[in-house]
Amino acid sequence: MPAVPDLMESHQVRLRVRSGQLVQPTAGLAPGYAQANLAILPRELAHDFLLFCQRNPRPCPLLGVADEGDPRLPSLGADLDVRTDLPLYRVWREGEMVQECSDLLHLWRDDLVSFAIGCSFSFDELLVAHGIDVRHMSCGCNVSMYRTNIPTAAAGRFAGPMVVSMRPMKAADAIRAVQITSRFPAVHGAPVHLGDAAEIGISDLAHPDYGDAVEIRPGEVPVFWACGVTPQAAIAAARIPFCITHAPGHMLVTDVRTQSLAAF
Amino acid sequence: MPAVPDLMESHQVRLRVRSGQLVQPTAGLAPGYAQANLAILPRELAHDFLLFCQRNPRPCPLLGVADEGDPRLPSLGADLDVRTDLPLYRVWREGEMVQECSDLLHLWRDDLVSFAIGCSFSFDELLVAHGIDVRHMSCGCNVSMYRTNIPTAAAGRFAGPMVVSMRPMKAADAIRAVQITSRFPAVHGAPVHLGDAAEIGISDLAHPDYGDAVEIRPGEVPVFWACGVTPQAAIAAARIPFCITHAPGHMLVTDVRTQSLAAF
Repeated sequence: MPAVPDLMESHQVRLRVRSGQLVQPTAGLAPGYAQANLAILPRELAHDFLLFCQRNPRPCPLLGVADEGDPRLPSLGADLDVRTDLPLYRVWREGEMVQECSDLLHLWRDDLVSFAIGCSFSFDELLVAHGIDVRHMSCGCNVSMYRTNIPTAAAGRFAGPMVVSMRPMKAADAIRAVQITSRFPAVHGAPVHLGDAAEIGISDLAHPDYGDAVEIRPGEVPVFWACGVTPQAAIAAARIPFCITHAPGHMLVTDVRTQSLAAF
Repeated sequence: MPAVPDLMESHQVRLRVRSGQLVQPTAGLAPGYAQANLAILPRELAHDFLLFCQRNPRPCPLLGVADEGDPRLPSLGADLDVRTDLPLYRVWREGEMVQECSDLLHLWRDDLVSFAIGCSFSFDELLVAHGIDVRHMSCGCNVSMYRTNIPTAAAGRFAGPMVVSMRPMKAADAIRAVQITSRFPAVHGAPVHLGDAAEIGISDLAHPDYGDAVEIRPGEVPVFWACGVTPQAAIAAARIPFCITHAPGHMLVTDVRTQSLAAF
């Protein structure tokens, strides 16, 4: 499908995904547009999950919540359909991942509620735009993620430790990064910690629980942000009968400009 | 009950309210501590109301949501009990206010879900601390509130126009007020409009829909903030079978310092 000049780049990405022409991780696609984590749960768990997000806005900043049974999220894209617009999904039963698939048309049900949760891809882009070296991007690998001893506020069956992502940077860049990301609570906001990893229960930065290890150079301080893997880990730990998420790195590309999410 | 030196001023206010010694509006009590609007709804409406708040964070910034049937909100005060800690409540049936009462012990049910929503009392205090004349405070009257033509994002049965509060101020103060309130999304955040009231569907500033009219002096610009009356109006319009709110001005005094709510 050739690019359609009248359409936003984010919309073009979704059309290519929807038609099956684009099945790849979405990092770097449609720069400037917010991407989102996706979680889809049955009605009977939707209130508790919404409450979990409300109580834990740093790991679970909600960009949009659909009506029950409605696959659309018009506030994030006029034509957006969560059943077809992500490149790859994961289907979970009783807390186990049972299937990956490229659309949800055969799985959709009238009782499903879709949640779009902000993603750190958005602020990585902002940090780079400010001249900060984002190590996992300059290395072309995945960000390092760790389970911590920071508890989340439980809601019904959803609970568990906060998962954080880590970016090593020089102190001056760390200070600038606090300023930049504070403006964007909708994509995790300010860091939750910096410096001594042991203080938040991380024993070895060289062995992340998710993603890839990155080099920490002399004079660099590790900076930790609440991570969108937190709600996924809470969903898995709850061993709920049925849910759907995006596959790692295969996000929902929205028509919302990241800059429009700035709190100030 | 004499003041107990070891207790926070906010906690002392709640103890006096709980014991029936304080039955008055809460404006000016426990300065520096956030006060909250209260809405209590049955379980079957709680998800839609939570969604309404999520979709309309400026009029409905959530400070806390209780578990079903639980009258406590420990994140807002260790001993806080929504059944006894507000000076005056209103009980609504089928959209009509049927009763005012000073506690909810006789009305409490295991299916009730309590919502605490940020209140502009908190930022009025901040504006005054910055030397801005907040007219309704210097006049000792209630803030002026108006229905607008700004739609809220509906959720289930909850919908309707945004209600705003208005404060007239000099242009330089209006600019400073934008800066100050932008830091506090948890208490309505930045203004939603300033200047021409007709643009948001207000025909006559001298006749507010709620509260009192205040003088607008030559050279002053009216500045409009999303108002916590918005969710109350949505609840009333939905004509739901049963719910409870605070009585106007009789708020929940929390142990959360307003400054701790700053987004940056």
